[in-house]
Amino acid sequence: MDTLEIKEAIDKAIENYLYEKEPILLYDAVKHLPFAGGKRLRPIIACLACNAVGSEFTKAIPFAVALELIHTFTLVHDDIMDKDEERRGMPAVHKKFGENIAILAGDALFAKAFEVASYIKDAAIAKIILRNLAIMAKEICEGQEMDIRFEEMEYVEEKMFLEMIEKKTAKMFEHAAMGGAIIGGGNEKEVKALQEYGKSLGMAFQIWDDCLDVIGKDIGKPVGSDIREGKKTLIYIYAYKNSEDREWLKNYGREDASKEEIDEIIKFFEEIRAIEYAKNKAIEFAAKAIKALDVIRESEAKEKLAEMAEFAVKREK
Amino acid sequence: MDTLEIKEAIDKAIENYLYEKEPILLYDAVKHLPFAGGKRLRPIIACLACNAVGSEFTKAIPFAVALELIHTFTLVHDDIMDKDEERRGMPAVHKKFGENIAILAGDALFAKAFEVASYIKDAAIAKIILRNLAIMAKEICEGQEMDIRFEEMEYVEEKMFLEMIEKKTAKMFEHAAMGGAIIGGGNEKEVKALQEYGKSLGMAFQIWDDCLDVIGKDIGKPVGSDIREGKKTLIYIYAYKNSEDREWLKNYGREDASKEEIDEIIKFFEEIRAIEYAKNKAIEFAAKAIKALDVIRESEAKEKLAEMAEFAVKREK
Repeated sequence: MDTLEIKEAIDKAIENYLYEKEPILLYDAVKHLPFAGGKRLRPIIACLACNAVGSEFTKAIPFAVALELIHTFTLVHDDIMDKDEERRGMPAVHKKFGENIAILAGDALFAKAFEVASYIKDAAIAKIILRNLAIMAKEICEGQEMDIRFEEMEYVEEKMFLEMIEKKTAKMFEHAAMGGAIIGGGNEKEVKALQEYGKSLGMAFQIWDDCLDVIGKDIGKPVGSDIREGKKTLIYIYAYKNSEDREWLKNYGREDASKEEIDEIIKFFEEIRAIEYAKNKAIEFAAKAIKALDVIRESEAKEKLAEMAEFAVKREK
Repeated sequence: MDTLEIKEAIDKAIENYLYEKEPILLYDAVKHLPFAGGKRLRPIIACLACNAVGSEFTKAIPFAVALELIHTFTLVHDDIMDKDEERRGMPAVHKKFGENIAILAGDALFAKAFEVASYIKDAAIAKIILRNLAIMAKEICEGQEMDIRFEEMEYVEEKMFLEMIEKKTAKMFEHAAMGGAIIGGGNEKEVKALQEYGKSLGMAFQIWDDCLDVIGKDIGKPVGSDIREGKKTLIYIYAYKNSEDREWLKNYGREDASKEEIDEIIKFFEEIRAIEYAKNKAIEFAAKAIKALDVIRESEAKEKLAEMAEFAVKREK
């Protein structure tokens, strides 16, 4: 069992579950992102967690696919709200199919996710998982609301920022690992440990992602998107708190800022060590994720989970 | 037990389940429609169906609330897509809170619906109901896609129109009655009969609704909305097929048509008996719904269900 084998199983399962063809326009839009690759991080975590507590990873496949579909649904709707035009190196769904179809395609992906999750065999477990997914989706909406509201604010406390990314991003990693452990029949201690692992990994992942926005290569969207959108990232928050002259603010959140103006802000973020601060925070969370795995018995799956946390704060895209 | 008692129990349950308060903006938007009244038709049908097969109607409450939340979610998103500015006599969610928050509020209502449905006690039944709700939501998206696509077409076959409203509207009535019967422990014959009842009632309801758009009073949105949006209703389809001179088409689907131009089209629909044709179709479906109840044992709940079908094609709003 390696991660690639899991990824292939998930890719295949996504293809099988998304069998719908008509109405053509709707389902072309529905399939636009799920069939465009993607790292499948959340489903892989779910399958590894399931395996780490002693079950075949395949048992977690319906749940894993449901997670990926919910993740994709949030991308489709977020891109509308954020007016992001690119995703996974392709036009965003609303750019290609128009906003109405994009809203609908997101809704259909969301519905499909719950249908797929209902294919979990054990009814008692299916019920728990479905409830958890629903609560998770609700919290993702809360996180997204905070994220777009923060754009209009000049400053956000680090604590509020961490709450926002916990809801918007980390919850899904948390549920991926926890749900995989529940489906795999893990005991209470294991489920809790994997939940903690997932949450910390999600925090690390999101903070590192915000760093990639200013230093990344080939991330499937233009460098500096967050700056143009005025996102209150940890980098921004640190820079704001630690700069006396806030001249750089004038171009932050300007959709029409030039490449030079963006580069200047990034250079300033480097000088003031804001990127370093955020990177270190991400690395701390990754370490916390790995630490949480202590109570999990040794296995290849556990090693892979630890590797994922290490990789989350090393990746360049 | 009367319908009012059920409605009050549902209103109360909606209030209890929607306990979330923060982020304030999101949950104000989430609660805007569910707390603004509404006839609660779908939840009432679910509770009556549950009772008609011999169980306390209260057993169906979580399911009934889930239905109403899904219904509300579709209204919120549809109003964005259709650019409808009023709903239930109030500003639509996107008019009051902006489009981004409206997209999110719809998503949160959708998530919340699945959370509430997961409170159905029996796990095996919960799993079936959750799957049915997910498939239903998917089909509603398909119906909505057809509806907005039809707006751009000059003509749509009656068969296609019926397929569209079956998905967009009737499915939810079908699932309401069927799900209520399943939760109530109905036997196969009863579940099937109530499913048929719900579907036919839904068809009757939607076709009558389209009639109200041209003859209605106090329907919570301006008369002639469908005409301005170029909706391909049964009235339009009949009028199109039966008119040689299609002069009236020039103002159909014109957002900026004057009241006089709208009135002229409505007058023409009357003269050519298109409204009568649609009304009769709705009445036929209502009769079919009542007929489907034949196999259900006599009870007050059964009578109420029959009354609802009668009322569906009598109401003026």
